[in-house]
Amino acid sequence: MRKVTRRQLLCSVGLSSGAGLLVGSSGKKAGSPREDTRESGRWAYVRLNSAAVAAEAYRLFPEGACMYGLFASIVTSLGRMLGEPYRSFPLHMMRYGQGGVGGWGSLCGTLNGAAAVFGLLEKDASRREQLITELFSWYEGASLPTYCPPGVRDSLRIPGSKAGSVLCHASVARWCKVSGAKPSSKEMVERCRRLTADVAAKTVALLNQGLEKSDSLPGQAPEVQSCLSCHGQGETRVVVGKMSCGSCHSFTGKHPKP
Amino acid sequence: MRKVTRRQLLCSVGLSSGAGLLVGSSGKKAGSPREDTRESGRWAYVRLNSAAVAAEAYRLFPEGACMYGLFASIVTSLGRMLGEPYRSFPLHMMRYGQGGVGGWGSLCGTLNGAAAVFGLLEKDASRREQLITELFSWYEGASLPTYCPPGVRDSLRIPGSKAGSVLCHASVARWCKVSGAKPSSKEMVERCRRLTADVAAKTVALLNQGLEKSDSLPGQAPEVQSCLSCHGQGETRVVVGKMSCGSCHSFTGKHPKP
Repeated sequence: MRKVTRRQLLCSVGLSSGAGLLVGSSGKKAGSPREDTRESGRWAYVRLNSAAVAAEAYRLFPEGACMYGLFASIVTSLGRMLGEPYRSFPLHMMRYGQGGVGGWGSLCGTLNGAAAVFGLLEKDASRREQLITELFSWYEGASLPTYCPPGVRDSLRIPGSKAGSVLCHASVARWCKVSGAKPSSKEMVERCRRLTADVAAKTVALLNQGLEKSDSLPGQAPEVQSCLSCHGQGETRVVVGKMSCGSCHSFTGKHPKP
Repeated sequence: MRKVTRRQLLCSVGLSSGAGLLVGSSGKKAGSPREDTRESGRWAYVRLNSAAVAAEAYRLFPEGACMYGLFASIVTSLGRMLGEPYRSFPLHMMRYGQGGVGGWGSLCGTLNGAAAVFGLLEKDASRREQLITELFSWYEGASLPTYCPPGVRDSLRIPGSKAGSVLCHASVARWCKVSGAKPSSKEMVERCRRLTADVAAKTVALLNQGLEKSDSLPGQAPEVQSCLSCHGQGETRVVVGKMSCGSCHSFTGKHPKP
């Protein structure tokens, strides 16, 4: 990883210029955790190399699986360039996200890890949510994994599949159906390892792109936008969420009239 | 919050005796994040008062919603008793979990925050997963919220409902159906705020109980155990996950013969 200069740091095109200083001394409330917790570190972002971070995520995966591999690849890379407070982050905690959190099959650990990175770096709620939406929508619709470790003889058949969901349970099931491999097989573990590299690269690409160009980002999938045009507001049965609807809800007949 | 004595700390009935020191100097690998990241802090656990933490979670919710309220209530309480490294944790990052991660309706933020606490405190993977399973199974089956802020005139109708799922989307939908309230209404926000207090209390109760008595803990719901007795292994269509099956899968006819 190249060494960053002061100029490069100042010219970083990552998050908004004020986003590095996530918690200032202003707005301190009596009895707030800020009394007890020093959140004064500068969680600045400096442009990373997405290919290098992907390779790092692939390398780190065996130490703590999906969420750990994703989060550690980015925070360790930033720690190498910027030092503290990244170097002191207790990375071990991110092992909890494995298998959709403790094997429960809920949110894919790569997405949980990436969203945690966005949480660490972006204090503006609307920009953070937009970063999450861009990443999660991409994950639902992309054929993954595509990453192939360089220099490794590819003896395993690791095809791509479209998850259609941000949930580990559904994402793995889709991939197993396409590949013919069993859950927890060495093929599935390798698939999740490569997926971690792919999501790490995409996360870094979004951070590098920043949100100045957010209008050019695709946002939510058109199908979800269509459902939420009624179910996101008004008198229809309103729901909370932006997940792909079709992975759990389907119509055997026609959609009820609006 | 009472001041902990050295004796109380040493007699803490929380996690296993070795669990406090989460990362030692042994097993260091070249190129590992441990080269760059100081994980040498002692993330010890000392018994907390679950009622006090619940009240703290309720109080903190408005600062960052569900995941933040849950995580910050426990880490801040430990920071008050034990000091560092708790006091330096960048709590702000946990705001990402709001609304099932950035409003996506995936994993309930209270559960994501609690699992992150388990990740921070428990390095043994099987004990960590058991803590997660105990909490998540309880959440799926309990009628929540039950917490009522003391001294507050209860002008809002906040009934309890059984989520039947660990997903924010389903959990909120069930509650809105029972209460008649709309998503994002002031009633729903108050429900999530009280739920955060309930889950914080349960998380602390599990940490206090420790895992010496794990045999007496209920574990996965019997319905899920029944499904996974075939779908968790063998030649049947095997799945990854421990979530309640019925919230997405139902049979209009009979279950296919095994």
